[in-house]
Amino acid sequence: MSSKIKNIAGMRKDAEEIFYSGLRAVEPGAAVKKYCRRENNHLFIGDLRYDLSEYKNIFVIGAGKATAPMAAEIENILGDRITKGIINVKYGHTSKLGRIKLIEAGHPVPDKNGQQGAEAVIDLVNNAGEEDLVLCLISGGGSALLPVPFPGLTLKDKQDTIKILLSCGAAIHEINALRKHISMIKGGRLAQAAHPASLVSLIFSDVVGDNLDVIASGPTVPDSSSFGDCMTIIDKYDIREKLPKSVVKHIKNGISGMVPETPETGDPAFDKTHNLIIGSNIEAILEASKKARELGYNAMILSSMIEGDTTHVAHVHSAIAREIIQTGNPIPSPACILSGGETTVTIKGKGLGGRNQEFALAAAMDIAGAENIVILSGGTDGTDGPTDAAGAIADTNTLSRAITMGLNPGHFLTDNDSYHFFQKLGDLLITGPTNTNVMDLRILLVT
Amino acid sequence: MSSKIKNIAGMRKDAEEIFYSGLRAVEPGAAVKKYCRRENNHLFIGDLRYDLSEYKNIFVIGAGKATAPMAAEIENILGDRITKGIINVKYGHTSKLGRIKLIEAGHPVPDKNGQQGAEAVIDLVNNAGEEDLVLCLISGGGSALLPVPFPGLTLKDKQDTIKILLSCGAAIHEINALRKHISMIKGGRLAQAAHPASLVSLIFSDVVGDNLDVIASGPTVPDSSSFGDCMTIIDKYDIREKLPKSVVKHIKNGISGMVPETPETGDPAFDKTHNLIIGSNIEAILEASKKARELGYNAMILSSMIEGDTTHVAHVHSAIAREIIQTGNPIPSPACILSGGETTVTIKGKGLGGRNQEFALAAAMDIAGAENIVILSGGTDGTDGPTDAAGAIADTNTLSRAITMGLNPGHFLTDNDSYHFFQKLGDLLITGPTNTNVMDLRILLVT
Repeated sequence: MSSKIKNIAGMRKDAEEIFYSGLRAVEPGAAVKKYCRRENNHLFIGDLRYDLSEYKNIFVIGAGKATAPMAAEIENILGDRITKGIINVKYGHTSKLGRIKLIEAGHPVPDKNGQQGAEAVIDLVNNAGEEDLVLCLISGGGSALLPVPFPGLTLKDKQDTIKILLSCGAAIHEINALRKHISMIKGGRLAQAAHPASLVSLIFSDVVGDNLDVIASGPTVPDSSSFGDCMTIIDKYDIREKLPKSVVKHIKNGISGMVPETPETGDPAFDKTHNLIIGSNIEAILEASKKARELGYNAMILSSMIEGDTTHVAHVHSAIAREIIQTGNPIPSPACILSGGETTVTIKGKGLGGRNQEFALAAAMDIAGAENIVILSGGTDGTDGPTDAAGAIADTNTLSRAITMGLNPGHFLTDNDSYHFFQKLGDLLITGPTNTNVMDLRILLVT
Repeated sequence: MSSKIKNIAGMRKDAEEIFYSGLRAVEPGAAVKKYCRRENNHLFIGDLRYDLSEYKNIFVIGAGKATAPMAAEIENILGDRITKGIINVKYGHTSKLGRIKLIEAGHPVPDKNGQQGAEAVIDLVNNAGEEDLVLCLISGGGSALLPVPFPGLTLKDKQDTIKILLSCGAAIHEINALRKHISMIKGGRLAQAAHPASLVSLIFSDVVGDNLDVIASGPTVPDSSSFGDCMTIIDKYDIREKLPKSVVKHIKNGISGMVPETPETGDPAFDKTHNLIIGSNIEAILEASKKARELGYNAMILSSMIEGDTTHVAHVHSAIAREIIQTGNPIPSPACILSGGETTVTIKGKGLGGRNQEFALAAAMDIAGAENIVILSGGTDGTDGPTDAAGAIADTNTLSRAITMGLNPGHFLTDNDSYHFFQKLGDLLITGPTNTNVMDLRILLVT
């Protein structure tokens, strides 16, 4: 433990360095490289080991915003052992690929490109046999980028269904149950299609808690919901008349066994299927905490699963900072507290901002005047709300600097205008697009 | 570190035991005993040492809900060395006292009894001389229990002023500035009256952050605000016409020097004055964490200064519990996370509850189904909101038990009806009145 006392300027630099080290740990190519390696004729993926001489074909599929650099690294590792590949990525989120075909498609609103790409993915795995290996690359956005409605349904039917569920107040797990049952890919159906090939999914998680069946709607993961559950949900919210007729008919067909159920745990589709999270919020936090210790801080990981209203979550972080100063709990200074996850903002004002910038502003108001606290909050995708900033950095002098400049911090907070607040102070965190997304990273330094 | 795995029932018992050990640490008599002792002719108070042979009189004064048992312990220690004493306590909050006179008075609304008692306190210390020692006992409620308006003002003038400030949206530090400048006791004026006697205040803190000038409005603490500040605040909110004329006149008199200013840092009134916090949230937490370690838990103090909306603060605590289970951060299980402070509830429903019970209910919904988490939240005064419970205990089975009983947890939360939720489950925490108040204590156990 270093005991050198740092000044605010040095701490701000440290906070940025810690943030960027966390970012590097979840760079998609680096994450693939960390978990996958080839030694002669063997492919090692985490604890798994595949003797490549036993496999006829290797197919690479996938979808998501971070999937292009993942695919590039897979090409580096497997080279011409890849038979064929297709991935769907968001417009502009590309990498230079060789054997793997890259299709740019719509996100967050699915489009025809996405559907065509997804149908090609299904064709590919449908043709995979017992002696083939399928590598599936999944990251945030994968759900919208792999839109294949069940035969008899249209993309519009799917979208209308989700809209109606959202507007009637259905819970997220209820929406997901429906979503999976009207898709040819989600809820384990992609694994079903790939069966009897061996299948490994390499997954970047952009959801709090890293639930496999939630990330990209779990295309290679068992589904615990049924067509029966879907009808119960439809009746619970009394939306049978509102939903597209084709969707209600499809659910009924499912219940009467005319449409196969999504595969549940124990289904043969998963006999040779493995799901491995290779990028997640906690991975970024762990690397960031390592860097913090290198820089001389006592590092503590609070939680990678922080949710809730941004301002109130900021209050809790500020309370921890003040406790460190007063009693040295939970850890003595120089201290670095790390947290991740994704908070929410209830927009009441007309300003510009994002949850990370608003977190920094609310925290700045809490810690004003205390000694040597720096708080950085940033989105790992480089885009905080509808802004070109990833987040912002605040410290114990932020408030007095703002007031000296004639800015009223309370007004900016009430107006959800954190972007302009930090822009005027020159304290925005600007990373540009990072090609990854494992939610947010918050760094609290106290000396 | 014990590695024995405990079941939920055992953990619930542990949580209660940890809570009660925290409570005992802030029992007012015990706290006085911890910080004060007499050896022959010397009185030791924390690091201070008074040679009693050098003092002619010892006067004991004070006010607050926990002050009677503090006074009783002071009588135990000093016996007939006490010349005279007067304390103001809330109706019913009494102890059997000898030399110290106890006056029961109104709280939270001040009354005539309070004013008469407070005037007697001022008389007493006005007569204290250079060779006298004044012990002042302060605890939560002390502000309302020592109401002496400045000559020319009435109790009603004071109350109207506070009401008007609250309704115009003034900040708490602005309200306090006014409050101190229209009082004969607050804002250091009690120390001013006691000068040139030696003065030691023994203080129980019921405010987040333990700011001395905020607890009971700081009767023996320097005040950094001025009459000029008061007028600025009045004009800021444009309430000159709304305030009682006598109050505006008093402030004007203060500005023109006709009324003495409240004493600031460096004022001779504080030359022989010491303020010592002997009871606070962190004291309860420290003792609770000791007990947690005895019971085999890895204990971590999150912060004693937690503020913010109850439900969102609960989300953060739940996120920490889930992180402990998934990655062993911030500390490995068996883990005990402790936090204190006071959250807020925005009442939207028509039910019965308090911030601690609502915290337990919100947390119960977050942790449902996870393995072995117990969450206890309780007010140290034994009274959570307008209920006869101090708080409640929830665990990872709470939600399923409730649903089995036909209770809808979401409805109870939305209706702010946490009391009836936990009453039906038999999971209220009932302590009865505790005679102390250092805000709330939250205990999170994970195995």
